[in-house]
Amino acid sequence: MAEILKGAPVAEALGEKMKRDVESLKDAGVTPTLAIVRVGEKGSDLAYEKGAVKRCESVGVAARRVTFPENVPQDELLAGIEALNAETGVHGVLILRPLPEHIDDETVRRTLAPKKDVDGITDGSLAAVMSGRGAGFYPCTAQACMEILDYYKIECKSARATVIGASLVVGLPTTVLLTNRFATVTNCHIFTKDVSTPARGAEILVSAAGKAGLVGKNHVSPGQIVIDVGINFTSEGKMVGDVSFDEVEPVVKAITPVPGGVGTVTTSVLVSHVVEAAVKSVTVADASVQE
Amino acid sequence: MAEILKGAPVAEALGEKMKRDVESLKDAGVTPTLAIVRVGEKGSDLAYEKGAVKRCESVGVAARRVTFPENVPQDELLAGIEALNAETGVHGVLILRPLPEHIDDETVRRTLAPKKDVDGITDGSLAAVMSGRGAGFYPCTAQACMEILDYYKIECKSARATVIGASLVVGLPTTVLLTNRFATVTNCHIFTKDVSTPARGAEILVSAAGKAGLVGKNHVSPGQIVIDVGINFTSEGKMVGDVSFDEVEPVVKAITPVPGGVGTVTTSVLVSHVVEAAVKSVTVADASVQE
Repeated sequence: MAEILKGAPVAEALGEKMKRDVESLKDAGVTPTLAIVRVGEKGSDLAYEKGAVKRCESVGVAARRVTFPENVPQDELLAGIEALNAETGVHGVLILRPLPEHIDDETVRRTLAPKKDVDGITDGSLAAVMSGRGAGFYPCTAQACMEILDYYKIECKSARATVIGASLVVGLPTTVLLTNRFATVTNCHIFTKDVSTPARGAEILVSAAGKAGLVGKNHVSPGQIVIDVGINFTSEGKMVGDVSFDEVEPVVKAITPVPGGVGTVTTSVLVSHVVEAAVKSVTVADASVQE
Repeated sequence: MAEILKGAPVAEALGEKMKRDVESLKDAGVTPTLAIVRVGEKGSDLAYEKGAVKRCESVGVAARRVTFPENVPQDELLAGIEALNAETGVHGVLILRPLPEHIDDETVRRTLAPKKDVDGITDGSLAAVMSGRGAGFYPCTAQACMEILDYYKIECKSARATVIGASLVVGLPTTVLLTNRFATVTNCHIFTKDVSTPARGAEILVSAAGKAGLVGKNHVSPGQIVIDVGINFTSEGKMVGDVSFDEVEPVVKAITPVPGGVGTVTTSVLVSHVVEAAVKSVTVADASVQE
């Protein structure tokens, strides 16, 4: 029977660290603050916003909703983002996406200051994934996978890892982050002819394809660590991952559940980025004073 | 006997395209111009500079040497780069690196405007590797590998590819570029326990490790395409790649030689970026006029 790699203790550990940092920041007169930019009233946006606000408040981070009507002119939205870039009291900005069709997503991403890009959507953040340095933050879900591996003390160095999915939001950055942690990574995707061989051969298997039942017993082998990033819904409305849990769990060494796995950690990573951005802003301010 | 994938015809094809673009630009009154920034008088810098100037001139691109003394203060170098960023007559800037130790490489990279970063060193260029869009240019050697595959009509989509080497300059960007062309890529590096299995299993094998003799007959299999990015020198001063050519050539389907392979294409890619930057600058100027 596999060890179940629950997200909750990982999120809790991140939360404890955040609380300590938030205390220090408050002693310095700084309340780390996340601005959540929402255009319109989409249900999924409202749900994500609610979760983010709740997680912020649980660790003493302030969350501010910045809302625009569904038909906001692009210039007005950009001006709003620029104002948040300039406001020293705002440390992180989360823009709920996808945006309405009349808004150009790339222009929006380019407008946001990388140092406030706690969701990892700017070029500065993508470059940071490649180089491990610079402004910006790793995409939250990709980093959540790494946080789970770290928390459960799963060694990446020299491990064979296979990542299923090559999206810019999860699959590709997770592949690069694992490589930069010295794993030997194979990336599979929709054009891969044979996924099961590299999947079975991996010591760490990450599935971020967004397809229920994609990873079955033919894709796994004893001793594996399986990280299931998928969030899918069955026709009965049940939330499931990419992995056929009942088939896979008896075979592998450890597996993240869905729900209660990666998704549980992602929001904590987002909020930890806000705290980190606030810490950096204080450090930069201190350095300026000392000059 | 393997087909030898020479770089010269690839460079020539790139050159033909460039010449046509340069003609059009000259008709519009624009001479595409590369500024080469050199600090000090290092032999390897002078050699690279000479090659770049020669390649520029062969296709009608102007090359300007911008030199600083070895002990130039960092601020002065940064001011020089900022002046080149601002100068509309300069379309691309190549900074010869590594820089002297008193200069902070990251600060220099951040100072350069991504739209003039024809060598692919800025965050904007790294982000472009990940996303396939945005400002900046792919690192030249990584793109040279892709140009060779394209010229010789080697299909990347659904191909199994293995890249040996995870450097930010070649191995990692080549891995990501191949992934974004829908290859199924495994990246190996110094911490990979068994390189030969993924190397042998690949349809396209790219070695960018910088170690002579790394890829021998145990790393290859019939039908493979081998791209040898390595540039190493034997104790006798002979230039060799990562691949033991005499062992590997009889086994595989096709292989790039060293010298005369990837290296031959790299400078052409650099110059093609200058032309591309000049074309973009004209397009942007046109768009401004039309507004």
